[in-house]
Amino acid sequence: MVDPRISVINQRLNGIKRIVAVSSGKGGVGKSVVATVLALLLAKEGCRVGLFDLDFTGPSTHIILGVPKGVEPKEEKGLVPPTFDGLAYMSLVYFVGDNPAPLRGVDVSNALIELLSVTQWGKLDFLVIDMPPGIGDPVLDLVRLVERIEFLIITTPSLLAFEVVKKQIALLCELKMPIIGVVENMKMNKATDVQVETEKLGLKYLGAIPYDPLVEATIGNPVKLLETTVASTMSQFKISTKPKK
Amino acid sequence: MVDPRISVINQRLNGIKRIVAVSSGKGGVGKSVVATVLALLLAKEGCRVGLFDLDFTGPSTHIILGVPKGVEPKEEKGLVPPTFDGLAYMSLVYFVGDNPAPLRGVDVSNALIELLSVTQWGKLDFLVIDMPPGIGDPVLDLVRLVERIEFLIITTPSLLAFEVVKKQIALLCELKMPIIGVVENMKMNKATDVQVETEKLGLKYLGAIPYDPLVEATIGNPVKLLETTVASTMSQFKISTKPKK
Repeated sequence: MVDPRISVINQRLNGIKRIVAVSSGKGGVGKSVVATVLALLLAKEGCRVGLFDLDFTGPSTHIILGVPKGVEPKEEKGLVPPTFDGLAYMSLVYFVGDNPAPLRGVDVSNALIELLSVTQWGKLDFLVIDMPPGIGDPVLDLVRLVERIEFLIITTPSLLAFEVVKKQIALLCELKMPIIGVVENMKMNKATDVQVETEKLGLKYLGAIPYDPLVEATIGNPVKLLETTVASTMSQFKISTKPKK
Repeated sequence: MVDPRISVINQRLNGIKRIVAVSSGKGGVGKSVVATVLALLLAKEGCRVGLFDLDFTGPSTHIILGVPKGVEPKEEKGLVPPTFDGLAYMSLVYFVGDNPAPLRGVDVSNALIELLSVTQWGKLDFLVIDMPPGIGDPVLDLVRLVERIEFLIITTPSLLAFEVVKKQIALLCELKMPIIGVVENMKMNKATDVQVETEKLGLKYLGAIPYDPLVEATIGNPVKLLETTVASTMSQFKISTKPKK
């Protein structure tokens, strides 16, 4: 039986050319910063971009962007995302609030599905999703529900982190999900292990982002964030930014 | 109604003087390394110590310790943990294997409860638990099921990480869980924000562990791990290592 929500959700996402899920098997690898910078860079190039924060373990892109309290979605046959810094912006934080009470498993899935079904993105070249970390139920739900989802995998040079990320890659490959490539974040040396292993897996190694202690001070200020080495490095990556026809 | 599993589990844990849950609201903060070093340091002081890896999002203490394949629990009216490097050692990895297939939500809870019910720890001064990150269902289950659990909270200096950790702290306080204190891991500068905020919350700031790039090379070698600045710093922390009577 086909899940009826799949068609509702994908009708909602119909006006979007590419859906890029920024994802990591491991938490704390800088996924949210990379997702935010990617969205800002694409917008700067003139693309119509949406940023969608679905990281229920701690939505943080609103903090990184410095979205002020008043900027909120509008109800109009669903929810229309506000525009902030050139991005159409939507976050789980608007749905569950910024409180400590955790969602139980089923509620997380329901919240994700609800947000996917009600958000009116309109026409976009790119929707960048800040994914929940790991490969638990919510990630599997997204994989199952969102057609045309493509993965950008973030890791750090840490062997422990990459071990976990490799499991995620194995799972995505098993599910035949398209993977754009692997980004090595917070690089502090010249080790090539992650690059070598990535290429051995038949995946594209997009490059390394050097650890930049100055990023911390740009949190809440997208203009300054785009001046960091994270942004200048990422702007060199050969992520095809031409939306597929 | 009282959950009957609570009494079974706590009977199993009856011979243990203190149960320390090493925990973080945020992934990737070095929780598993800190938990492993804590267990090794306590054992070195002459305590009887167990290390229990319940991080279903990617159990890694067996990699940090370098536990060889043959070292496995023995079945004997339950599971008897093998002893490795002076620690009684048990991990979810023995239960679910090291494969990429993720457990669905209910299975995670069942696996945790099953492991807690069958493991024969015997008499210990300390059981150090490497907790799942975040404040999702499995953490709530552990809080509910394990009496006498005390939390050691790990964060990094990153404001984004600490924002998420603060939510976890708020939740634990609401649940009236004892918190031993907060450890700031991977410190690279002299910023005092985390210390100031921790003390404002009425919690003990145990100290900062400097970022040590040499830790990576000690993965799999506990003797070398104890020679890092992570271990020398942690040995100075005023975590009361006297088991409560």
